[in-house]
Amino acid sequence: MLPPELMFRIRAIAIDTAPENMAFLPRGGGDYGAERFLALRKIEISRGDASIQATLAVLDDPSLLEPGEIGLGAQAFRRLGLAEGSEVAVAQAQPPASLDMVRRKIGGETLAAGEIASIINDISRHLYSPMEIAAFLVACAGFMSTAETLALTRAMAEVGARLCWEQPLVVDKHCIGGIPGNRTSMIVVPIVAAHGLFIPKTSSRAITSPSGTADTMEVLANVDLSLARMNEIVAREKAVLAWGGRVNLSPADDILISVERPLRIDTPDQMVASILSKKLAAGVTHLVLDFPMGPTAKVRSSSEAVRLRKLFEHVAGSLGLVIDVVMSDGSQPVGRGIGPVLEARDVMAVLRGEADAPADLRDHALLLAGHVLDFDPELRGGQGRARAAELLASGAALAAMERLMAAQGPPPAVATLGALHHEVCAPRAGRVSAIDCHRIARIARLAGAPMDKGAGIDLFCKVGDVVTAGAPLYRIHAVHDTGLSYARAMADDASGYRVMA
Amino acid sequence: MLPPELMFRIRAIAIDTAPENMAFLPRGGGDYGAERFLALRKIEISRGDASIQATLAVLDDPSLLEPGEIGLGAQAFRRLGLAEGSEVAVAQAQPPASLDMVRRKIGGETLAAGEIASIINDISRHLYSPMEIAAFLVACAGFMSTAETLALTRAMAEVGARLCWEQPLVVDKHCIGGIPGNRTSMIVVPIVAAHGLFIPKTSSRAITSPSGTADTMEVLANVDLSLARMNEIVAREKAVLAWGGRVNLSPADDILISVERPLRIDTPDQMVASILSKKLAAGVTHLVLDFPMGPTAKVRSSSEAVRLRKLFEHVAGSLGLVIDVVMSDGSQPVGRGIGPVLEARDVMAVLRGEADAPADLRDHALLLAGHVLDFDPELRGGQGRARAAELLASGAALAAMERLMAAQGPPPAVATLGALHHEVCAPRAGRVSAIDCHRIARIARLAGAPMDKGAGIDLFCKVGDVVTAGAPLYRIHAVHDTGLSYARAMADDASGYRVMA
Repeated sequence: MLPPELMFRIRAIAIDTAPENMAFLPRGGGDYGAERFLALRKIEISRGDASIQATLAVLDDPSLLEPGEIGLGAQAFRRLGLAEGSEVAVAQAQPPASLDMVRRKIGGETLAAGEIASIINDISRHLYSPMEIAAFLVACAGFMSTAETLALTRAMAEVGARLCWEQPLVVDKHCIGGIPGNRTSMIVVPIVAAHGLFIPKTSSRAITSPSGTADTMEVLANVDLSLARMNEIVAREKAVLAWGGRVNLSPADDILISVERPLRIDTPDQMVASILSKKLAAGVTHLVLDFPMGPTAKVRSSSEAVRLRKLFEHVAGSLGLVIDVVMSDGSQPVGRGIGPVLEARDVMAVLRGEADAPADLRDHALLLAGHVLDFDPELRGGQGRARAAELLASGAALAAMERLMAAQGPPPAVATLGALHHEVCAPRAGRVSAIDCHRIARIARLAGAPMDKGAGIDLFCKVGDVVTAGAPLYRIHAVHDTGLSYARAMADDASGYRVMA
Repeated sequence: MLPPELMFRIRAIAIDTAPENMAFLPRGGGDYGAERFLALRKIEISRGDASIQATLAVLDDPSLLEPGEIGLGAQAFRRLGLAEGSEVAVAQAQPPASLDMVRRKIGGETLAAGEIASIINDISRHLYSPMEIAAFLVACAGFMSTAETLALTRAMAEVGARLCWEQPLVVDKHCIGGIPGNRTSMIVVPIVAAHGLFIPKTSSRAITSPSGTADTMEVLANVDLSLARMNEIVAREKAVLAWGGRVNLSPADDILISVERPLRIDTPDQMVASILSKKLAAGVTHLVLDFPMGPTAKVRSSSEAVRLRKLFEHVAGSLGLVIDVVMSDGSQPVGRGIGPVLEARDVMAVLRGEADAPADLRDHALLLAGHVLDFDPELRGGQGRARAAELLASGAALAAMERLMAAQGPPPAVATLGALHHEVCAPRAGRVSAIDCHRIARIARLAGAPMDKGAGIDLFCKVGDVVTAGAPLYRIHAVHDTGLSYARAMADDASGYRVMA
């Protein structure tokens, strides 16, 4: 069916256009030029079974491509998976059939489980452009039935890899996020491993926050582990602290997140589907969920927390995942350090039992580790917390962490605290009455975290502390002048601290 | 506030990324590289008052940019409006404040007129990415109050240029679209001009259809007229048939359409706001609206037509625009030719009064011209249609068209019918019982229309005609082999005709 004029040789163009596939064709390229494909801006590029859809950009610079070539941006080239110079057929893309279902959802209909699965399947195959993903997300944000949320979670878990540990009890803990410095996983995992439960933890890198567990763990050890390496480590240590991105768990989730974050769409339904699909794909059977609640946290009131808890419980229960929701204090950052190096320092201080280790981080980690240990049928009910404290105090947790670090290997680069710094001081004497989690996270991010592992914020006082006028509230660390200037400018504008005289 | 490391020299990159602004920075460019801007993918590029936001792509090919340069795609470069090599500051873009209002709309709230105006204003300044525009459109598709539709229409009309003709009666006609070959404007305008009413018509080019009025008129005359040239022509001829894109009427509409079309969002509210904002900006006072109704048309039932008519009447009335809605037959294509050259042929055959001119095109044009002439207070009520027929029969309309063509000047290139062709034949003897407007439009489009003005479809029979087995139903014309192959393959798959034995 395809005329020979629509065969092109592919050429990689070193442009990163994440999350989108992009292709480049010259304008007026002879017979049937790029403009003819432009009506819907999407083309299909294929050879045999290999096929991708890509957004088309039209080149007016003839030097970038030879005649008969089509350029592919980094994402498109990688996803098509053919060698440079391969001949491919190019055609106007057919919109994925599931877009009709998105349109019905926009029109107010409720979708069947199979329809939601078709949509998620097409999204995971990169057939949706960001604007089409936004259309789906916004239509869902308008209204989703519980059955739709369940179907969405199941569909997301079923595309991509699924880890299987062949263990009756695979535990995990997860925080719904939003609280800077809340790096409890790196304390909970060694405690639970020391006790002997199975806790193969995969974590994400930060997208809009100053650090994710994978970023902070990478200060101490290698986190970029293949599935084979993870299996080896878990077989010996019963635990791992790895980056989940390498093993392709719930890839649709990553694609949805790439649109949710810039649009700041953060509905309960999407949160449930995102978190639970990743856990199901990771082979988790028992999960402790941490809900920090506070005025600048994700959950702001107890009625909101209850509704969200019930939705999590219903969906998890229907999918055979046991969950235990723990409400915690989300009124201010946890610990002192924010940013990979500073957080790793706090985590190790807690594991080492240092006298000045941040007490709130230790207490919060023990609370969560206690709930995880309570999943162990061998433990007497309610003994989890005491057992966790014992494993921390005895040094067993520290030893487990050291074994994990040794097993995962050294980090790809040595990270040290950023040498550039600036102190933000109290404008008046008084008591710290509030700390804005959002603001502190943005300042740490501008300083360079998590890309610069040594950048971040070191908090010197917390809510309730009494300060003198001019006393330092926190110190911004940066690796580059630019990061320091940006962060400093934002802190000058508003520090994120409220000090009441 | 900005450190010197964030000053770049701009360099134009000849890549057309319509509708989006794109910017290119090298990865790991020294101190504060491109990756640090990637969290939200949008950056702000500014120098003094000149400022744009752009989506960032990261270059891994160091040869495209010199150190210290930022690349701007064609749209970004044009919209920033600075010379190549100008120094600009680059910062993480602040999302436009109006996005919070979009988020409230997603959450089910009704927006105030001023909030809708802020959103439209930011969209017209290219501050929204396609995914953000999609979020706004889908949120609106869920529910819009009549007051919101009115506010949207007004806001869209108020950004961009506004033509002012200083005439009490500025008439126009507009079809809501969807019917191939329905090129009545090029007959109505000369009839109305011959009568002496003021009809300065601006039309669009096709986006997803095989031809727009501007594309077809361009076969006969130049349509790319400056406002000054339009004014001169209208002063003498009382009419013009120009491309509206040149004069920047309701630019927000063009941006919204660039997202609505690929998503196929086509709600009554968006249709009303799109059409009426363009007419208000064009200075129209009295408008005849053509609603073709049929199984493959935009309006499919009379109850739908009545609801849509009332919405148009309410919004137009509130904005001081007189409208007259005409329901017409949208069950099949109008005329014989589809595509610029073929449609121009039909239009001229009607104006010349040729015996074999398509009767349905003539009748439909006379119906609409009659309604337009009925706006003339000098005419006796109901005499419009007879007056229109008289002006067509006498040759006055043809003479008016010839004066317009002479005034607008010759087309930029001579367009002739595509020499390549293929006939699609009846699979059996019988009666043509239905013609699918969508399908016929897509086949004509694949053949190359409207880019290749000589490409398109020539219909040999219409609904109700009796055909023998193997008799030609229509002929596909193309300029390029590729177009012919594509169109032919699609017609082989399904011709768009139903022939009942």
